[in-house]
Amino acid sequence: MPPSSPFLSDVPAAEALAAWQAVCGAAGCPALTEAETVPVQHGVGRVTAEPVWARRSSPAFDSAAMDGIAVRAADTVAATETFPVLLAPESFVVVDTGDPLPEGYDAVVMREHVHRTADGSAELRAAVPPYQHVRSIGEDISATELLLPTGHRLRAVDVAAAAAAGVTELTVRRKPVVVVVPTGDEIRPIGSELGPGDILDTNSLMLAEQAKESGWEARTTPVVPDDPDRIIAALREAAAEADLVVLVAGSSAGRDDYTARVVEAAGTLAVHGVAVKPGHPVVLGAVEGGTPVLGAPGYPVSAALTFEIFAAPMLARLEGAAPRERPFVSARLARKLASTLGSDDWVRVRLGQVGGEIVATPLPRGAGVLTSLVRADGLLVVPAGVEGHHAGEQVRVNLLRGAEEIGRTIVAIGSHDLVLDIAASRLRQADPRITLASSNVGSLGGLVAIRDGLCHLAGSHLLDPETGEYTLPYLDRLLGDGPKVAVIRLVHRDQGLIVPPGNPLGLSGIADLARPGLRYVNRQRGAGTRVLLDQELARLGLDPSGVTGYGREEHTHLAVAAAVAGDRVDTGLGIRAAARAFGLDFVPVAQEPYDLVLRADAVDDPLLAPLWDLLADPGFRAEVEALGGYSCAETGLRIR
Amino acid sequence: MPPSSPFLSDVPAAEALAAWQAVCGAAGCPALTEAETVPVQHGVGRVTAEPVWARRSSPAFDSAAMDGIAVRAADTVAATETFPVLLAPESFVVVDTGDPLPEGYDAVVMREHVHRTADGSAELRAAVPPYQHVRSIGEDISATELLLPTGHRLRAVDVAAAAAAGVTELTVRRKPVVVVVPTGDEIRPIGSELGPGDILDTNSLMLAEQAKESGWEARTTPVVPDDPDRIIAALREAAAEADLVVLVAGSSAGRDDYTARVVEAAGTLAVHGVAVKPGHPVVLGAVEGGTPVLGAPGYPVSAALTFEIFAAPMLARLEGAAPRERPFVSARLARKLASTLGSDDWVRVRLGQVGGEIVATPLPRGAGVLTSLVRADGLLVVPAGVEGHHAGEQVRVNLLRGAEEIGRTIVAIGSHDLVLDIAASRLRQADPRITLASSNVGSLGGLVAIRDGLCHLAGSHLLDPETGEYTLPYLDRLLGDGPKVAVIRLVHRDQGLIVPPGNPLGLSGIADLARPGLRYVNRQRGAGTRVLLDQELARLGLDPSGVTGYGREEHTHLAVAAAVAGDRVDTGLGIRAAARAFGLDFVPVAQEPYDLVLRADAVDDPLLAPLWDLLADPGFRAEVEALGGYSCAETGLRIR
Repeated sequence: MPPSSPFLSDVPAAEALAAWQAVCGAAGCPALTEAETVPVQHGVGRVTAEPVWARRSSPAFDSAAMDGIAVRAADTVAATETFPVLLAPESFVVVDTGDPLPEGYDAVVMREHVHRTADGSAELRAAVPPYQHVRSIGEDISATELLLPTGHRLRAVDVAAAAAAGVTELTVRRKPVVVVVPTGDEIRPIGSELGPGDILDTNSLMLAEQAKESGWEARTTPVVPDDPDRIIAALREAAAEADLVVLVAGSSAGRDDYTARVVEAAGTLAVHGVAVKPGHPVVLGAVEGGTPVLGAPGYPVSAALTFEIFAAPMLARLEGAAPRERPFVSARLARKLASTLGSDDWVRVRLGQVGGEIVATPLPRGAGVLTSLVRADGLLVVPAGVEGHHAGEQVRVNLLRGAEEIGRTIVAIGSHDLVLDIAASRLRQADPRITLASSNVGSLGGLVAIRDGLCHLAGSHLLDPETGEYTLPYLDRLLGDGPKVAVIRLVHRDQGLIVPPGNPLGLSGIADLARPGLRYVNRQRGAGTRVLLDQELARLGLDPSGVTGYGREEHTHLAVAAAVAGDRVDTGLGIRAAARAFGLDFVPVAQEPYDLVLRADAVDDPLLAPLWDLLADPGFRAEVEALGGYSCAETGLRIR
Repeated sequence: MPPSSPFLSDVPAAEALAAWQAVCGAAGCPALTEAETVPVQHGVGRVTAEPVWARRSSPAFDSAAMDGIAVRAADTVAATETFPVLLAPESFVVVDTGDPLPEGYDAVVMREHVHRTADGSAELRAAVPPYQHVRSIGEDISATELLLPTGHRLRAVDVAAAAAAGVTELTVRRKPVVVVVPTGDEIRPIGSELGPGDILDTNSLMLAEQAKESGWEARTTPVVPDDPDRIIAALREAAAEADLVVLVAGSSAGRDDYTARVVEAAGTLAVHGVAVKPGHPVVLGAVEGGTPVLGAPGYPVSAALTFEIFAAPMLARLEGAAPRERPFVSARLARKLASTLGSDDWVRVRLGQVGGEIVATPLPRGAGVLTSLVRADGLLVVPAGVEGHHAGEQVRVNLLRGAEEIGRTIVAIGSHDLVLDIAASRLRQADPRITLASSNVGSLGGLVAIRDGLCHLAGSHLLDPETGEYTLPYLDRLLGDGPKVAVIRLVHRDQGLIVPPGNPLGLSGIADLARPGLRYVNRQRGAGTRVLLDQELARLGLDPSGVTGYGREEHTHLAVAAAVAGDRVDTGLGIRAAARAFGLDFVPVAQEPYDLVLRADAVDDPLLAPLWDLLADPGFRAEVEALGGYSCAETGLRIR
């Protein structure tokens, strides 16, 4: 069933937003929420609906700006060091700072400059100019002056100044109300036990909290099943009490068509599909009566970004305030970034300050990877007309964390290990300003990142088959005459075969991988675990082509374990912690050192000092060894 | 009575903060507030008290990443364009995006690539690699991975990710509670009628709201009179239920001694006086039992800054979070800034982007001028060891507003007029992103600022005595071969003598200023009003030395009116609006044009377009003329 009225599709975000606003306006949505009056004490966070003019001056009277005596300046004109003037007690008044200037007096002499005689007179040794040490009426605020314009979001200092200016009530915009309507037969409330195919309703929680983070009101309705009539009814009901409705679709590809038809039936469809990734399948429209409705895609990153790109500006507009804007920084891109033409690509990046420069490392780009948004320090928008960026290019990044905070982030790129997570958490606990951010690109990728100055640390466990040594031979080959590096041992850890619970195929080592029909999953080229496998196969005289699945690559230990857990494969090589993450069993194959590589001159960087302290901490070592599969016997040892 | 225990005085802020924390710790203040458990739905804004580990993987199962059919990759190996493979209906399953991958299947073929035959079979024309279009279990989150570290302030995306990872409860720090205790016989609750010398309790409101702005809890006790025993009792009572007490002193010079003695009596005094301006008289200590107490100075800017410099970091520490930090920008200083050695000087500045560069204009520096903080876009800290900065120097400014917002600020420096306030408010109302910020330095100062590229607009009403023309002759003299400028007429306005209500001395014009004993107050050199007076005196053949008070200078129309209202003078020359601000009368002397000067190439700057539109708006003109004393007959006319 094609929609019956014209709507926009695949348009840029700005065009989509304008079309949405136009459709809502035409359907009767007011330009602004109503004005309402609140006591000045309750004004913070609200947006002024009219200018705030001072009703009285502050201070409201001339007052002493020093402790001392109030005098008439004219009485002191003749005073000099040699011929002091003596003021009789009835010709001056003792005042403290803040006291009103007594009637008829026009200056203050500091206590320190007054000599009081025995009869109570005051001796002055210098003439006093009029207004000396007098804080004038209206010094801060003059009655009738403009204190705050319309459309200003009130802060603590604003309401205090308004109160000082005699304002007792403020006229502000009613806070917009967002109602979130989750839909979908497979959606279950948070905290539910999940059956096969069930999905927790985390999107509604996120969208409602995004609204509240900006100071708006938000509530969420119960989940509505996949029945168009019930969804239309729920949408109309929500619209009756909302300034904006967010209809949360499931994540299937056809779900946006479904949402679009529902919006069309309940009012007017303005936009279906925008040239934004992730977020493309967004639906924008108005319910009868004009309430804006945003049909949010089901993938969480899409949902979060469409709220930010469309709902937030719409709500700010309704409140009469400027939309929230984040600062930008310029950063050097850590690796090549491809982008499809025709869509703005919102790439989540980690940021760190390495060698005096901010470096941006792209995070996983899938619309379903919410943790990419959790871990992001910034958003890099690759415009629709750009095919991507080269590694090392300067890019403009919208900051999600403070620049100062980013300057205190230890950037680790390379092989990832759970021990780095434990370190990150303990470092933060000791000092909340420290972040250890690690990105997983494999051991070899990490060494390249060190060479190119893109990170502080690289986790590495690369075995050199010729020497049997780990990591060091690679450094010589890769860095040659490049930057001098240091190597610090983090842990020894067990590598082995990750197998289903109970090890149903009875695997006992690498030799079993050649069994006919056994499904193996490999790690990517450049990963230390891949090198270990190749070395073990060679040692045993086995040909990789005899291992079914040797060509299937996953990029992390956890992804290998996930493939085993999902019964897509029978086994893969990885660390014990990954097996435990999915409740799997583990057949040890080798113990290997896992080291941290860094530039030699960075060893004394104060940024890293807390990490070196941590490696020496017995509590940390005990926590790591308690995981199983780790040894801290050489933790903290400088290998090179 | 000298304090009985040692305490620090006049130390730098960092040292004072450390001493305060040490004293509180020694007195029994816990390092952190207790951990408590909240449902994941209520986590936003709270700080994690322990790391959040994923309890389950997300997605929790392998699922289709496209709409299409689930297949076994092995069944498709032989498929080519010329020899398609036909899958019988029992060999594939139709799936929608998000559906769990059916047991035994390992890949998905997009709907678009499947040809369905009449008997329901699926024809494939290409082999399918395993895992194609499969979203793997754990793609977003793997069970046991570190999701969030300790000490992390939770956002919407964080709680959504935690919920997706099977977390239903979060362990967070209890929100710190601030209790504000206002003291002083002269302090009246907001909304009170004020008697002579009374002061509204705006500081308590501001301090409590500053705490709430950071997400902490805050409440304010009733005002405690100036009785040490009652203040000590109130302090102890507050400390029993607070994590931090703010004791708000009055503003007199001796009040901090008083506060220090009270803190000493109720516990331990750590610091009395810091090397920070404004904010010097701050008192820091601990109540018995260890509750930190901050004795805030009575001047509002001092109170606000001491909260920010001392209370906020202390509260963040108690919550286990990094203190809030604002971004910095580099800006060009618009004018010379002197600073006393020995104290960090916190200077409030306005910021604007002029000619591609951020320019910082210092605001009034008095500790009592709260509007300087209201109007500030940033804080410039001149360190204790620096005597100041030259005009044009690059300085580092801590941003109070967003950089984007600052880029959309029209900076007016020069003579100020109430009409600019009305324009500012109307511009904001039309588009909440626009700010018109004006600083008053007099007409001549404004023209110099235009010459030096420090502002977009300069308000000017400079009379040239020789030609009788306004502003234009000065431009030729001042700018010479410098930048080409344009001049736009804003209004004509009445200048006249501001007199007490009823004009008790019966003044009728400038000639009366020579009356013996009459007290006049003048404007500063460079002000258009000063030029007008000199021109009128010359025309009448009067000698300035015959005007009592000719040498007393105020910097604004409103300050002149304030001096008349405070009965410090009998009259001064100014505009009608200033007289009305203080309920005074007005004797017209002349009508003068008030013009806006700008660089010629800025006339077409899109930043200024809304202003030109406004000048043509009949509603704006009507509002201006309704003020009285203004004519808009030539408003918007380009004079040059």
